[in-house]
Amino acid sequence: MTHAGRFKTLEQIITERLNNLTKPIGSLGYLEQIALKMGLIQGKVIPDLPKNKRVYVFVSDHGVSANGVSAYPKKVTRQMVFNFLNGGAAINVFSRHVGASVYIVDAGVDTDFKIRDEHFIDAKVGYGTRDFTKGPAMTREQAEKCIEYGNRIAQKAVEDGADLLAVGDMGIGNTTTASSIAVALGFSIDDVLDIGTPIGIDGLERKRRAIEKAIEINHPNRDDPIDVLAKVGGFCIGQMVGFILQASKLRIPVIVDGFPTTAALLLAWKIDQGVLHCVFAGHKSQVKGHKAILDRLNLRPILDLDMRLGEGTGAVLSIPIIEAAIKMIRQMATFEDAGVSKGEDRQ
Amino acid sequence: MTHAGRFKTLEQIITERLNNLTKPIGSLGYLEQIALKMGLIQGKVIPDLPKNKRVYVFVSDHGVSANGVSAYPKKVTRQMVFNFLNGGAAINVFSRHVGASVYIVDAGVDTDFKIRDEHFIDAKVGYGTRDFTKGPAMTREQAEKCIEYGNRIAQKAVEDGADLLAVGDMGIGNTTTASSIAVALGFSIDDVLDIGTPIGIDGLERKRRAIEKAIEINHPNRDDPIDVLAKVGGFCIGQMVGFILQASKLRIPVIVDGFPTTAALLLAWKIDQGVLHCVFAGHKSQVKGHKAILDRLNLRPILDLDMRLGEGTGAVLSIPIIEAAIKMIRQMATFEDAGVSKGEDRQ
Repeated sequence: MTHAGRFKTLEQIITERLNNLTKPIGSLGYLEQIALKMGLIQGKVIPDLPKNKRVYVFVSDHGVSANGVSAYPKKVTRQMVFNFLNGGAAINVFSRHVGASVYIVDAGVDTDFKIRDEHFIDAKVGYGTRDFTKGPAMTREQAEKCIEYGNRIAQKAVEDGADLLAVGDMGIGNTTTASSIAVALGFSIDDVLDIGTPIGIDGLERKRRAIEKAIEINHPNRDDPIDVLAKVGGFCIGQMVGFILQASKLRIPVIVDGFPTTAALLLAWKIDQGVLHCVFAGHKSQVKGHKAILDRLNLRPILDLDMRLGEGTGAVLSIPIIEAAIKMIRQMATFEDAGVSKGEDRQ
Repeated sequence: MTHAGRFKTLEQIITERLNNLTKPIGSLGYLEQIALKMGLIQGKVIPDLPKNKRVYVFVSDHGVSANGVSAYPKKVTRQMVFNFLNGGAAINVFSRHVGASVYIVDAGVDTDFKIRDEHFIDAKVGYGTRDFTKGPAMTREQAEKCIEYGNRIAQKAVEDGADLLAVGDMGIGNTTTASSIAVALGFSIDDVLDIGTPIGIDGLERKRRAIEKAIEINHPNRDDPIDVLAKVGGFCIGQMVGFILQASKLRIPVIVDGFPTTAALLLAWKIDQGVLHCVFAGHKSQVKGHKAILDRLNLRPILDLDMRLGEGTGAVLSIPIIEAAIKMIRQMATFEDAGVSKGEDRQ
């Protein structure tokens, strides 16, 4: 008899436990898969509840915003950083609601903040990317630096005790950047082209031309994720790539949000396919390209509320569902505990 | 100038408020509609957060369970009542998670409980319905009594301070009963026939025949919801009809759960179409008929997690999302508060 035959896998043990809870087998649907995944990530039959939940919002400016691809002026990126730090943005409200702390990362906003706040992380790689319709968004060195900074931010988070991470992003021009990355990696432009903010039909045409030009001019190499990041990426996206990779390496679950964060996940997955074992998709955004990437990665979103804001909002709102799944396996009675018939003796 | 021209409606005022929050217009998707609906129910621009959340689980036996339509023996209905009162069922776990209290209503279980517990409500109409493949499930008087009891339970809940209600149900045979109601009200059997518990293909055929026979033998009058309830309904479903009607009359939001609760809502809606103003659909169940009814009522489910357990589980899990929607409009900064550009001055 082989070892494989003699010992149950952790997955089998967790599944048996789920099947013994007082409910018809499988009747808690996706919650059961979430509980299983959390057990596998933690290496435990009965996963621990997260005690230190954090969302990291990576913020940077994008040179491509000069092409009229957003409904908002570039200065809104900077203004929103102050809104985040003052607690008035959607991500603040939702994070308080679910008991998560918000960290704002300046990955490359076009301003000097000089902010001292333990929830503000200065990881500036530059004052916004270059307009990638005219040449590469950043140098290869900058792209590598983004990933390195993202690694370190995740490392520090985990050292400080974080046990459930969410990623979000903010930056005028970020969906144009994410679309360009997706197209560089082989998605058709029609699968991903959509409005991020309300820009109308003319704005959408400008966005299409910007993405097409980005690919034409820069020839990103789809087999080299760093090249794609450097040529048509953004500082915030690059840091999320590093963040997701490191969180996953440390076996800490990480929840992605909307289209730009999932474009970052796609790049991370190109670097290390194992990354998906630790990743949850918080929601399906209303932005078209998001679903295309989730499908490619075979990741099922937890929520589907037609949201399209970013900031990590869809990621943090999924936390109560993830916690419910963990509590299900931790707290529900088994058939035996409760003296409930399993159905073999129908009478 | 008419009044209609001079004064804004509450809906307009709430919508303006939502549009002034620091996010692109409409970018929080369904959350914005939930906040609007909650404001309209409460008659306030800024809705209050619920302080007294309750789920009522209506439990009864169904005579039709004698036809082999469930994977579980009938005694499981009774056993689960003790599991609920001991706090070990899924609904207990999820209700603790979201801060809701669980009330178990004996609408007609085939046993004498003699339970004294402030979370147990004795509203027994009978010891289970009759097998409606052989004649009416109950008398018209019993059907009316169910609705009356449901009214009273909702009335008492609201008098005790409940400001957010969820309904759930438990009872072996309940999806067969709900399917029969739906078919009696005009749905095709193929739109609603599905397994509730894992009964296999043979079980599903037995279920189809039971539903067909129920309609053939009893000739429920689709224009008379009380007749439908009496002939092919159940005690738990009847009480939920009364509960939902009264909650709605008192303008207290009520969240429905899966297929049987939504069949109850369908009957309530046949009695009073205005009921929908106060109703949220907590989730879309994996049980086929559920979506058919939600579509007919034009109710959008908040969650979609392939759950099929009942007990109110899908209803209570939506509570954190409803609360997030309320907190959004209560706590988010406006563009003016936060000094964020609204985008008219793109620069």
